[in-house]
Amino acid sequence: MNRLDEVGARARAAARQMTRAAHDQRVDALHRLAELLDTESAKILAANDDDVAAARAEGRAESWIDRLRLDRARLAGIARDLLTVADLPDPLGQAYDQRRLPSGIAVERVRVPLGVLAVIYESRPNVTIDIAALAIKTGNVAILRGGSDTLRSNRALLAAVYQALDGAGLPRDAVQLLIDPDRSLVNDLLRLHEYVDLVIPRGGNELHRFCRENATVPVITGGIGICHLYLDASADLSASLPVIRNAKVQRPSVCNALDTLLVHERVAARALRAVVDLLAQDGVTFRAEPHATLALGALPNDLAARVAPAGPQDFDTEWLSLVLGLKVVSDLEAAIAHIEQHSTAHSDGILTEDRVLAEQFLSRVDSAAVYWNASTRFTDGAQLGLGAEVAVSTQRLHARGPMGLPEMTTYKWVIRGSYTTRA
Amino acid sequence: MNRLDEVGARARAAARQMTRAAHDQRVDALHRLAELLDTESAKILAANDDDVAAARAEGRAESWIDRLRLDRARLAGIARDLLTVADLPDPLGQAYDQRRLPSGIAVERVRVPLGVLAVIYESRPNVTIDIAALAIKTGNVAILRGGSDTLRSNRALLAAVYQALDGAGLPRDAVQLLIDPDRSLVNDLLRLHEYVDLVIPRGGNELHRFCRENATVPVITGGIGICHLYLDASADLSASLPVIRNAKVQRPSVCNALDTLLVHERVAARALRAVVDLLAQDGVTFRAEPHATLALGALPNDLAARVAPAGPQDFDTEWLSLVLGLKVVSDLEAAIAHIEQHSTAHSDGILTEDRVLAEQFLSRVDSAAVYWNASTRFTDGAQLGLGAEVAVSTQRLHARGPMGLPEMTTYKWVIRGSYTTRA
Repeated sequence: MNRLDEVGARARAAARQMTRAAHDQRVDALHRLAELLDTESAKILAANDDDVAAARAEGRAESWIDRLRLDRARLAGIARDLLTVADLPDPLGQAYDQRRLPSGIAVERVRVPLGVLAVIYESRPNVTIDIAALAIKTGNVAILRGGSDTLRSNRALLAAVYQALDGAGLPRDAVQLLIDPDRSLVNDLLRLHEYVDLVIPRGGNELHRFCRENATVPVITGGIGICHLYLDASADLSASLPVIRNAKVQRPSVCNALDTLLVHERVAARALRAVVDLLAQDGVTFRAEPHATLALGALPNDLAARVAPAGPQDFDTEWLSLVLGLKVVSDLEAAIAHIEQHSTAHSDGILTEDRVLAEQFLSRVDSAAVYWNASTRFTDGAQLGLGAEVAVSTQRLHARGPMGLPEMTTYKWVIRGSYTTRA
Repeated sequence: MNRLDEVGARARAAARQMTRAAHDQRVDALHRLAELLDTESAKILAANDDDVAAARAEGRAESWIDRLRLDRARLAGIARDLLTVADLPDPLGQAYDQRRLPSGIAVERVRVPLGVLAVIYESRPNVTIDIAALAIKTGNVAILRGGSDTLRSNRALLAAVYQALDGAGLPRDAVQLLIDPDRSLVNDLLRLHEYVDLVIPRGGNELHRFCRENATVPVITGGIGICHLYLDASADLSASLPVIRNAKVQRPSVCNALDTLLVHERVAARALRAVVDLLAQDGVTFRAEPHATLALGALPNDLAARVAPAGPQDFDTEWLSLVLGLKVVSDLEAAIAHIEQHSTAHSDGILTEDRVLAEQFLSRVDSAAVYWNASTRFTDGAQLGLGAEVAVSTQRLHARGPMGLPEMTTYKWVIRGSYTTRA
C-alpha cells in the first residue's frame, strides 16, 4: 500500500481524459492560464511574498530567495513562455511506420502522451507553471513535488491552473501538487510505478542520484555536465577565444558550461596564454596539468596567482563556477581519450579549421551533444530549436540532451485486420 | 565499489569500438557466427548434453529441459535467424531533424547505439545467440546473464561468438557472459549504472519485478499481459470465432494470449454459446461473470462442467493457460471501462463491422497494441514487421510493445557552427 495510491489513481484517470482532449482544448487551457497569471497576479504575488518572508526568517541565502521570488515582470515572462509553448506544433496523433504485412494486417504506430509524469524540483515557482504548461500541451498529466519553501506560491499558481483547466473543459487532476511537506512522500512517489510512467528530477546531482537509487518508476536523470572543448592546432585562435569565453563565463553555474580546455601542443604556448589573459578579466582561475603549466611559462604575478597545478580529481570535477581546467594534448586521439575518460557525455566540442578532424571528433565522441566550432552553452531546448524543454537527459534511454515536446510522447501500435489470425 | 566494475569498464571500452564499426563488419560477424554454429555444432551439442544431464540429475521438469535442449535442427534454426537479422537494414548513422537556427548553428540528430545492454534471462541457450546477434548488428555491447543450468552450453556458444568477433575484427568484450553462479551478482549488475545503459529482463513477471525494485540502471520491463477482445453486436460472429480461438488457444502460455472476452449484451446469448462450444473442443475452461452465466443459460453437462463463476480476482489474472474469462457488457463504453480497469495495457482488441466504433476503440484504449478484427497474438516483433525483437515492453518510456533494431538505438545531437557563441 502506497500513501499516494489515490493521487496516482486520479492521475491515471485524468491521463485517459487528457489523451482524448483535442489540441485546441489543450491550447485553450494555456491561453487561459497566461491570462490568469495577469488577472490573478495580486493573489499570486501576495502568496509569494509570504514564502519569501518565511524563507528570510529561516535565514535562506539571497541566491535561494532570488530563485524563489516572483514579481510582476517575472510573471509576465512566465506568461509569455506559456504562449510560446501553446504555439508549438501538437506532438500527438501522427501515425507513422505504416505497413501492410504478409499476414494481411495493416500496422502503424501512433504518437500518444507518455502518460503520468512526476516532477520533483526545488524552490522555483516558475517551474510549477513551466511543467504544468508542458504537460497540458502534450496531453500528459503532471504530479508536482516542489520545494516546501514555495508552498504558498505553488498553491496560488495551482489555483490559476485549476481555473484554466476548468475553463478549457479539462480535468483538474491533470495537474496535481503534493503539498504535504513530509519528505518521505518523495520515496512513495518514486515507487508509484503502478500509476506513474516517468519521474523527472529537476535539480542538482544529489536529487538525481537519490531518484536513481530509490525509484521503481522509470527516471530520466541528468545533472552533471563535465564539458570539454578541444582547441586543435588548425583552429583560428582569435575566433576561438570568444567561444571558449562564452562557454566558460556566460553562465558558469549551469551544466553546459565549460569545465576543461584541451589544447594541441603545437599551439599550446600561444593559445593558453591568450586564454588566461582573456578569461582572467572575467575572474576565471585555472587548474593546469604539468604540460600546460610548462607551456604557459613565466607569467606576470597577477596572472600567476590565478593558475594552480591541477589536482588528481580536478579533471573529474564539474566546476559550476569560474574555474577552468587546462591540459595540453598531443593530437586528436589524445583529446578524445581524455574526453572518453573524464566527460559525463553531456556536451563536448572541437575548435578546428580541419573538416576531416572535425567530423572524426563528431562521430567518435559519443556525448549527448557534440560541437564543431560552437559554444557548449547551446545544449538547451530553446537554443536547439525545441521551443521548450522539460529536462536535459544524460542517460541514453528514450531521450538524450534537451527533451522537448516530442520527447514527452510515446507511441502505440494500431493493428487493423479482417478477422485475421496468426498462422 | 561494485564487483562488476571491471566487466563494466571493458564493456564501455568495447562500446566505443562498436560505435565505430562499419555495418559490413557487424554483418560479417553474424555470417561467421551462423557458419560456426554449424562447424562447431559437435562441441556445442556435447556441452549442451552435459547441461541437460545435469538438469535431469537435479530433477528439472521436462518442459524446463525442453527449453534448455539444443539439437542439430535447433542450431540450424538459430543460424537461420542470425542471417535474417544480418539482412535487416542498418539502424545506425542516419541524420534527421536537421535545422539551421537563428543563432547560426546547424543542428541535427544522428542515430547511435544505445551502448551497453545487460540482459538477464533463464535457461534458454538460444537467447544467448539471439541477444548477441541483435547487439552486434546494432553496434551495442551485451552483458549476458543466463540461467546457471545453461552454463556449459553458453560457454560453448560464447566461444563461437568470440571467434566470429575476432574474424570480423570486432572486440571480444562486445559480448560478455557472467559465468559466476553467485546470484547476488545480478544485484551488482542492476546497480552498474556507471557502465550499463539498459537492463532488459527476459523472463517471468517475478524477474521483471525484481529488476524494477533493485535496479539503478534504467530497465525495460514487460511481463504481464492481461489481454482483452471485445465482441461488438455488429461483429460477424462466424468470422470472429476463429479470431477468439486463435487468440486463446494457439499458444496459451504467452503474454499476448487472450485472457478475457467481453461480449455485447445484444448478441451475448448466441455468441457466448458459440464460443464455449468451439473452445471447449480445445480444452478451454471458462470463468463467467453473472450476466455471462445468465446469457449462457442451461448448458449440456459436459459444457456446464467447463464453466465456473468468475471469482473476484479472475479478471485481474493473466491465465497463461487454457482459461478464458467471459463478461457481458452493455456497450463500447462499458467494454472500454472494463479494459481500463483490468488491462495491463499490453494487447487489447475489438471485433466489429462498425468502423466508427472501431476507431473510437483504437483511439481510446491506450495499450501498447490495439486491434481491430485481428488476434492479439500478433504482438510480436516478427509479426509486426520488425524482423526480430529483443524484448516486449509494457512500460511507456523509450519503447512500447515489441522492440526491434531501431528501438536498440538512441541519438546524439550534432551541432556545427562557425565559432558561434550563445547570445
